[in-house]
Amino acid sequence: MMADTVTALILAAGKGTRMHSNRPKVLQTLLGEPMLEYVYRALEPAFGERIFTVVGFGAEQVESAFPERASNFVLQKEQLGTGHALQEAWESVQKTGAGYCLVINGDTPLATTEAVERLAAQAGRADVAFMTITPQDPASFGRVVRDDSGRILAIVEAKDYDHATHGPVTGEVNAGVYLLRMDSVGQLLDGLRAENNSGEYYITDLVAMAVEQGMTVEGVTCGADVNLMGINSPRELIDAEKTLRRRIVDGLIDEGVMIHNPDTVIIGPRVTVEPGAELFGHVEIYGESVVRAGSVLNSYTWITDSSFAPGCVVRQFCHVEQAEVGPDCVVGPYARLRPGAVLRKGAKVGNFVEMKKAELGEGAKASHLTYLGDAVVGAGSNIGAGTITCNYDGKNKFITTIGEGAFIGSNTALVAPVTVGRDALVGAGSTITKDVPDEGTAIGRAKQLNLKRRMKKS
Amino acid sequence: MMADTVTALILAAGKGTRMHSNRPKVLQTLLGEPMLEYVYRALEPAFGERIFTVVGFGAEQVESAFPERASNFVLQKEQLGTGHALQEAWESVQKTGAGYCLVINGDTPLATTEAVERLAAQAGRADVAFMTITPQDPASFGRVVRDDSGRILAIVEAKDYDHATHGPVTGEVNAGVYLLRMDSVGQLLDGLRAENNSGEYYITDLVAMAVEQGMTVEGVTCGADVNLMGINSPRELIDAEKTLRRRIVDGLIDEGVMIHNPDTVIIGPRVTVEPGAELFGHVEIYGESVVRAGSVLNSYTWITDSSFAPGCVVRQFCHVEQAEVGPDCVVGPYARLRPGAVLRKGAKVGNFVEMKKAELGEGAKASHLTYLGDAVVGAGSNIGAGTITCNYDGKNKFITTIGEGAFIGSNTALVAPVTVGRDALVGAGSTITKDVPDEGTAIGRAKQLNLKRRMKKS
Amino acid sequence: MMADTVTALILAAGKGTRMHSNRPKVLQTLLGEPMLEYVYRALEPAFGERIFTVVGFGAEQVESAFPERASNFVLQKEQLGTGHALQEAWESVQKTGAGYCLVINGDTPLATTEAVERLAAQAGRADVAFMTITPQDPASFGRVVRDDSGRILAIVEAKDYDHATHGPVTGEVNAGVYLLRMDSVGQLLDGLRAENNSGEYYITDLVAMAVEQGMTVEGVTCGADVNLMGINSPRELIDAEKTLRRRIVDGLIDEGVMIHNPDTVIIGPRVTVEPGAELFGHVEIYGESVVRAGSVLNSYTWITDSSFAPGCVVRQFCHVEQAEVGPDCVVGPYARLRPGAVLRKGAKVGNFVEMKKAELGEGAKASHLTYLGDAVVGAGSNIGAGTITCNYDGKNKFITTIGEGAFIGSNTALVAPVTVGRDALVGAGSTITKDVPDEGTAIGRAKQLNLKRRMKKS
Repeated sequence: MMADTVTALILAAGKGTRMHSNRPKVLQTLLGEPMLEYVYRALEPAFGERIFTVVGFGAEQVESAFPERASNFVLQKEQLGTGHALQEAWESVQKTGAGYCLVINGDTPLATTEAVERLAAQAGRADVAFMTITPQDPASFGRVVRDDSGRILAIVEAKDYDHATHGPVTGEVNAGVYLLRMDSVGQLLDGLRAENNSGEYYITDLVAMAVEQGMTVEGVTCGADVNLMGINSPRELIDAEKTLRRRIVDGLIDEGVMIHNPDTVIIGPRVTVEPGAELFGHVEIYGESVVRAGSVLNSYTWITDSSFAPGCVVRQFCHVEQAEVGPDCVVGPYARLRPGAVLRKGAKVGNFVEMKKAELGEGAKASHLTYLGDAVVGAGSNIGAGTITCNYDGKNKFITTIGEGAFIGSNTALVAPVTVGRDALVGAGSTITKDVPDEGTAIGRAKQLNLKRRMKKS
Repeated sequence: MMADTVTALILAAGKGTRMHSNRPKVLQTLLGEPMLEYVYRALEPAFGERIFTVVGFGAEQVESAFPERASNFVLQKEQLGTGHALQEAWESVQKTGAGYCLVINGDTPLATTEAVERLAAQAGRADVAFMTITPQDPASFGRVVRDDSGRILAIVEAKDYDHATHGPVTGEVNAGVYLLRMDSVGQLLDGLRAENNSGEYYITDLVAMAVEQGMTVEGVTCGADVNLMGINSPRELIDAEKTLRRRIVDGLIDEGVMIHNPDTVIIGPRVTVEPGAELFGHVEIYGESVVRAGSVLNSYTWITDSSFAPGCVVRQFCHVEQAEVGPDCVVGPYARLRPGAVLRKGAKVGNFVEMKKAELGEGAKASHLTYLGDAVVGAGSNIGAGTITCNYDGKNKFITTIGEGAFIGSNTALVAPVTVGRDALVGAGSTITKDVPDEGTAIGRAKQLNLKRRMKKS
Repeated sequence: MMADTVTALILAAGKGTRMHSNRPKVLQTLLGEPMLEYVYRALEPAFGERIFTVVGFGAEQVESAFPERASNFVLQKEQLGTGHALQEAWESVQKTGAGYCLVINGDTPLATTEAVERLAAQAGRADVAFMTITPQDPASFGRVVRDDSGRILAIVEAKDYDHATHGPVTGEVNAGVYLLRMDSVGQLLDGLRAENNSGEYYITDLVAMAVEQGMTVEGVTCGADVNLMGINSPRELIDAEKTLRRRIVDGLIDEGVMIHNPDTVIIGPRVTVEPGAELFGHVEIYGESVVRAGSVLNSYTWITDSSFAPGCVVRQFCHVEQAEVGPDCVVGPYARLRPGAVLRKGAKVGNFVEMKKAELGEGAKASHLTYLGDAVVGAGSNIGAGTITCNYDGKNKFITTIGEGAFIGSNTALVAPVTVGRDALVGAGSTITKDVPDEGTAIGRAKQLNLKRRMKKS
């Protein structure tokens, strides 16, 4: 056993009734990321792979949200409290051979690596250690009781706190993050009782039990840091999200990103924005997006999991999802780039244009009212207004290929699978069902007939 | 006469010059609702049908905004002041047989039921009662003068206030809401004079007159509550709107609605949002809209008078007006649902699609660049990109009917009136002018002609 | 020489490294306008044409941003400090015959006319005068040292400030705006030395030199006014932009513009919005735009260099650039008006419609999914859904002309150059390549063919 090694254990089995949701609480999102993602991000630098997660309510949902972590999931079938969750996970943690287990709730998205590391630093010193905070409003958090020399005596529930017995109020409360020596706490675990109103096993009881056994118990003070307080309601989530939002936006501004109107900009924690990029609020960027220096994102834009090369401009009202935008491209306004949209250098996508699994070659343009799905468009081609790739027959999808330098006239339907050759031309208003050869011309429309008198519309 | 019965009278005849608008002041909107609507909502729980409204400037506009209330409108042809308005309405109130009349200005959208009920509770006690407030800034409001025992002596205009005569400044001012005993005040009404700078009859003068006659006059104190102060300028309206906005959004969050980025969410007072709904700001919801638990509204969305069933998702950039969105539907991004748009369970409306008086059956889809007007689309049908129902001939509108399981190829014009049968197929690029039978196939497009050489575009 | 005449000199040669941009710092924008524009606007009322600008880094970019000012540009090829910039510009200023030169940095977009006039008023009194401020945080600004009677002794760099030598800290710092008597300072200019860490010539050194020569040196105090502090980082620019934004929006509200949700409204400094206009946030208006009384702009709208006549309504999600919208027009939602779009009285442009160099005559409508480029549409015409003007052949643009009262059926391509006559009708689904006579009817589509059995899609 590695005496001072610490394994982390996240308690993530709760439903979060006050969220009024079918999702487990830890899957509620902040800035587009599930709560639990933040906890993993805080723990990872300190614990690497040594992170276990107790799941329960909606376990399958948590598993599909974090498939790469599922091998370290412990299922708590019945949710009988934090103490019970610990009991269920104990064996798994023990098998890692770690000397200590750090226990943290999965509903603490504001927790920082620094904070957990401060607690983990007690490894080798205490049998039981836990973080304490002295918030402005101690609310219903468990009160920390110390003796005159500052030694932890107990954690007492707010409603049971009694001046005569416990001394003057200090406002110090239990933050709910614990470091437990496996050998010591292993002896206490079976002694947990659910003899309380809610009939649950509480991890807090371990503190009193450890003190009673004469074990070393430490309270690691964190000042007024409320970042460790768990989230239990929409209000608390919204407040935490606001804190995270500002933290990220302010951080980027300080690094040199020009974020005009920062109050209306939302950027997720996994997004990279390089100094020298310029954002005009309101902009929302989520997921694994990357915005390079010298690219400009304009207001009323929603982006997720996409990349923007230097010099590209995203105009207003764009919706971009899993797309790759090359250098010097111009996107929008009102462009929708769906998964698999790829724009090569200098390509342009204009208003009311949708791209899905489609590539626009270097300098190619699709400027107006167009749908490009399952398509490859060669460099320098021009896709006229109202062009539609008919990629779907109700069952399957088919590919449209357009060669370099082609010109597709307006209001054209390209019935896939179909290929329009290099430098070919398609007349406006055509429906193209057969391939068009290189440098060829295709027309598929009826001749215009003029009548002398105005007729009823038809 | 029912001695303690109170009838309410709203003074709503003013133009509101500082609003720089052709609309009467009480029709200026906050969160999409006219000011007067808020006053009705505050009075209704207390007075039910017993609410009269004095209208004057733009009376017809007020009438068409509140047609169901017009039978209780009193027209003040010339706007000669609040006292004159009272004189004009007196007979109507008297006919109700009520013992008391509560008078309130129509420009007080922040007034609460509780506040007016507190004043109405003086019925049976006072001849004249009025609300007083002690705001941080008494501005130019009429000062309340009391004797040493706290009895009301007079209301004095700010500029006429004199310490020697009126005693030390208390900061207590007249809030402009009055409760008048019909029998007592009826005797005073003819005595009102317009002998002041503006040449108007003032309701405030009644207070002094009643004191002089030895009547019982009460000032009901409301602390610093500025909610009763009237709105006279864009600035005051905007501040009040902000207060209302926060009040509604905070209330919903506390009930359990997840409102991400609440600072950029606007929700009107008649909107219902159930706990368990999730809103990603910026979202605006107005009118009589209903958002059920488990539905999700995404940012950059504008909604009015529409309903959203559980499990439906409204993506970004949607514009929804008098539409009904069924369970598990997906709307947008960039979908415009106009009045009469109905989506049955699981239907999907995609980008750059407009629906007007159109129904999409269960699981039907219209995903791209489509206009569905005056149309009924059967369950499971697929409407291809660029489909347009040609419902208008310049004079009349006609219906398009599409059967269940039909497939409409892309870039198709359906010239209404026309029916496409069940499980029928329409080829891409067609103009459909005749009905298509069930399970039939229709094509209306020219054959493609390939030329060997590239020609000039045409 | 006009002894008390003052010429202004703006120092605008810097790169602004901390901006991480290829643009010179003075071209960084606030509310859509380059920083330097604000400085010109502050100086113009005081100095008219007598404004010189020292450019250096990216001089050509500054020149193309302000072509009308280029004749008064002085090029500082090497950027060797503010003193060096002054030396380079000296001759040009001297030629104007002005007795004084006011020197200001080009990175002070919050500077006001009033402030520079206060300093310019020292003309005739001092040899060297400069503005001083006493900000909350003096940061690294140069400290002002005065003797007991308040006479300026020196400006000392923050890090060199020494209590023993310079007396107690007053917090008064140099704001970096100078008024220099040409005759006096001309004698000092050659004495500037670059003997400091950065190897640059500093204009601040002139103060010490003038004191030494027994010249009259004045410090004009401006209290805590931070508006004169230069902008050196994205953070500082963003804060200044916020200040400007609020200043403009608040000013308009106070004048009588109804700006609902002012926190999400952005209005540039050259925009005119008349009292009686109504804006529903979020709205962004830039450039030389004009919004007349009685016009309404709805949320999620982006506007630049456009005008809106009384009674027009811009619905949500509109993008308007160099367009002219006439009285009683209705625009949007989702309308894009590009440069040269003109709407005559009562015209309507609906959703997913793009106009570019196109005019819609009085009462004409283009309601859905349409592209009008290089087109003139007569009064009262109706453009059906999905209409596209094919104005481009890959090389040149051509005009489409549509007469008054014409009716263009849906899903129609108009291949320019082409004319559709007065009161003419074009059938839905047509491709129009030849002119249509007045009152004529044109159809260009294939006949519909119905097959009995459903086929595979094509």
